[in-house]
Amino acid sequence: MKIGIIGASGAVGRQMLVCLEESDLQIDEIRLFASPRSKGNVLKYKDQMIEMDVVEEDSFEGLDYVLGAVSNELSKKYLPYIRKANAVYVDNSSAFRLLDDVPLVVPEINGEDALKHNGVIANPNCSTIITMMAVAPINRLSKIENMVTTTYQAVSGAGNQGIEELKDQIRQIDENEKVEPKVFPKQIAYNCVAQIGSFLDNGYTTEEMKMMNEGRKILHLPDLKVCCTCVRVPVYRSHSIAVRLVTKDVLDLSEVCKAIESSKGLKLFVGEDIPAPLETSDQNDVYVGRIRRDLIDEKGISLWCCGDQIRKGAAANAVQIIEYLEKHK
Amino acid sequence: MKIGIIGASGAVGRQMLVCLEESDLQIDEIRLFASPRSKGNVLKYKDQMIEMDVVEEDSFEGLDYVLGAVSNELSKKYLPYIRKANAVYVDNSSAFRLLDDVPLVVPEINGEDALKHNGVIANPNCSTIITMMAVAPINRLSKIENMVTTTYQAVSGAGNQGIEELKDQIRQIDENEKVEPKVFPKQIAYNCVAQIGSFLDNGYTTEEMKMMNEGRKILHLPDLKVCCTCVRVPVYRSHSIAVRLVTKDVLDLSEVCKAIESSKGLKLFVGEDIPAPLETSDQNDVYVGRIRRDLIDEKGISLWCCGDQIRKGAAANAVQIIEYLEKHK
Repeated sequence: MKIGIIGASGAVGRQMLVCLEESDLQIDEIRLFASPRSKGNVLKYKDQMIEMDVVEEDSFEGLDYVLGAVSNELSKKYLPYIRKANAVYVDNSSAFRLLDDVPLVVPEINGEDALKHNGVIANPNCSTIITMMAVAPINRLSKIENMVTTTYQAVSGAGNQGIEELKDQIRQIDENEKVEPKVFPKQIAYNCVAQIGSFLDNGYTTEEMKMMNEGRKILHLPDLKVCCTCVRVPVYRSHSIAVRLVTKDVLDLSEVCKAIESSKGLKLFVGEDIPAPLETSDQNDVYVGRIRRDLIDEKGISLWCCGDQIRKGAAANAVQIIEYLEKHK
Repeated sequence: MKIGIIGASGAVGRQMLVCLEESDLQIDEIRLFASPRSKGNVLKYKDQMIEMDVVEEDSFEGLDYVLGAVSNELSKKYLPYIRKANAVYVDNSSAFRLLDDVPLVVPEINGEDALKHNGVIANPNCSTIITMMAVAPINRLSKIENMVTTTYQAVSGAGNQGIEELKDQIRQIDENEKVEPKVFPKQIAYNCVAQIGSFLDNGYTTEEMKMMNEGRKILHLPDLKVCCTCVRVPVYRSHSIAVRLVTKDVLDLSEVCKAIESSKGLKLFVGEDIPAPLETSDQNDVYVGRIRRDLIDEKGISLWCCGDQIRKGAAANAVQIIEYLEKHK
C-alpha cells in the first residue's frame, strides 16, 4: 500500500504520519507533501527519514490513498491530480464535506458510508467528530431530536500557529510585553474568544453551523436541530463540549452509561470522576462524563466530553477511515 | 454612615473597599475585619490607612452596614453579633440566600426586594448575577421559561488562592516542575475543569444548582427551569456564560437588543463585535453579545455574556445594594 500526505508539515499532517505508524496498515511507501517553505525537510517514519516535497501534477501516481491536511483551496486544487492517479482522497478540509457524493465519516458511527465513496471521503470537523462520538451511542437507543452544544476549543484547531500564539502570549504577558493577536481575533492567553470561523447572516459562525450540518449527515438524522456556541479557550490540543440533548423517548441513565461504556473509541467517566481536556491529550479515545438527567425536559440528557482535536478530531479519524476501507474491501 | 467589611483581606473583601471608595456613599468610618493571620495589616481607603482587626462579639457596635466576604460558616457565626449591633448585613456567602425572609438582590433587577429585609440581604452567586443581568431585560419583554447555561468561570471565583494557583501552575509548567492541584480538583493551567462546588445526588454540582434556585428568586420566576454546566477555565477574573433561553412568546431580536442596550449595568455588543472576559476585567458592567435566534425553537434566543466576577459578580453588587437602600430610605 502506498499513501501520500499533503500538508505533512502542519500539526494534523505530522499527526497523520504518527497515526499511520501506530496503525496495523501494511504500508510500502509514504510520500510527504508540503509548501515550498518545507521542501527538503524530513520527517521520521519508523526507521526511515522521509523528505517533504511540493505537489506536482503527477505527484500522486501509484498511490492508493492520499490524506489531506490542507486548506479548502488547496484541497480543491489538488483533487484533480489525485483523481488522475486513481488514489482515494481522505480529506480533512471542509471543501467537500456536504456534497451528496462524498461520504462524511466517523468509522465507529457510519463507517459503512465510506464504502460508497466516489474517490473522495471527507473527515468531519474536529468538534463535530468528538461530539458525535459521545452522542452516537445515545442516538442508537433513541433518536436525538435536538442538541444545545457549547464548545471549549483548543488552540491547536488553528494548527501549529495557534499553538505558537498561545505560547508567545503567555511569555509576552510574563515579560510585560504588548500582546498583539494575529491568529485569533482576540488575545487567547487567559481569555475566551467566542468566535471560531467567520460570521454568517444568522449570527452563527461557520464553525457553529458545522455541528448541525455535519452532525445530520454523520448520524443520518436530516431533521436534527443543533444550536451551537463555539468558543476558543487557552488549552493546547484537546476540545471539550458541554452537550444537552433531547431524545425521542425517555432513556434510563444507566442504559445510556452502558451504551457509552461499550462503544469503541469512548471512555466512560462516572460520578465525581470527570474527564478533562488535558487528560485526553495525545489519546485517540473520546472521554465522556457528567452524564445526568436534564432539569428542563425528562427526555433531556446533559454530558461533558473531551477529545484530542489533532488525533480523533482529525488525523486519527482519517487514518481509521483508511483502516475501515482496507478491512471491508 | 459607618460600614464594616468582614473578610477584608480576600479578593472580594479588598474589592468591596475599592467599590466603596468609588461609590457616592458618604462614609464616616470603615472597619476592616479578617482572620488572625491578617490582623494588623493595613489597607488604603482614600487618604486613610485602615488596620485590619479580628471579629469580636462587639466589633460591629455603631455600624450601619456590614459587608460579608467570608465562608458560610463564618457568616453564620458572625450574624448574631451583627444583629446585636442592629447593623444591616449584606452577605456574599450562600448561607442565607434561599431563606424566605432574606432578599436575594441584584439592584438593577429586583432592587425593591432589598427594602423588605429583616437585617440580612444576600448577594447572589457570581455566575448567577452575571447571567441574570444579561437575561433580565429579555424576561421583561416575555417571561423566560427555561435556560441552558454553560459557564466559563475564572479562577478568582476561588479567591486569591485560585489566582495564585493558576499563576504557580503556569510557572511550574514553564520550568518543567510537577504540577500538584490544591485549590481546584485538577490542573487548571491549559485545562478546563467541569466541576465547581461539590456533587449532588442528581449529578449536578452545588454551583450549577445555584443558577436555577437563585435565578428563580431574583427573577421572581418560581417555575423557571435551568440546566447548567459550570466549568472552570484558565482566566483570571471574569466569568463568561453561553446562554440559550426560551421565552413564552416569540421575540423580535432587534427589540431584545434595544432592551439590553437601554438597561443600566449592561453593554451591548452587536454583530462581529464580541465581548470577551479579559475586556470586562475590573469593569462593573456586564457585556452581552452574540444575540441570535435559536435554531431549535423559534422562541429561543442564544447569547454570550461576560462580567467581572469579583466586581459585579460579588463586591460591586453588594455595594450597589447599600446604595439602593440609601437611595430609597
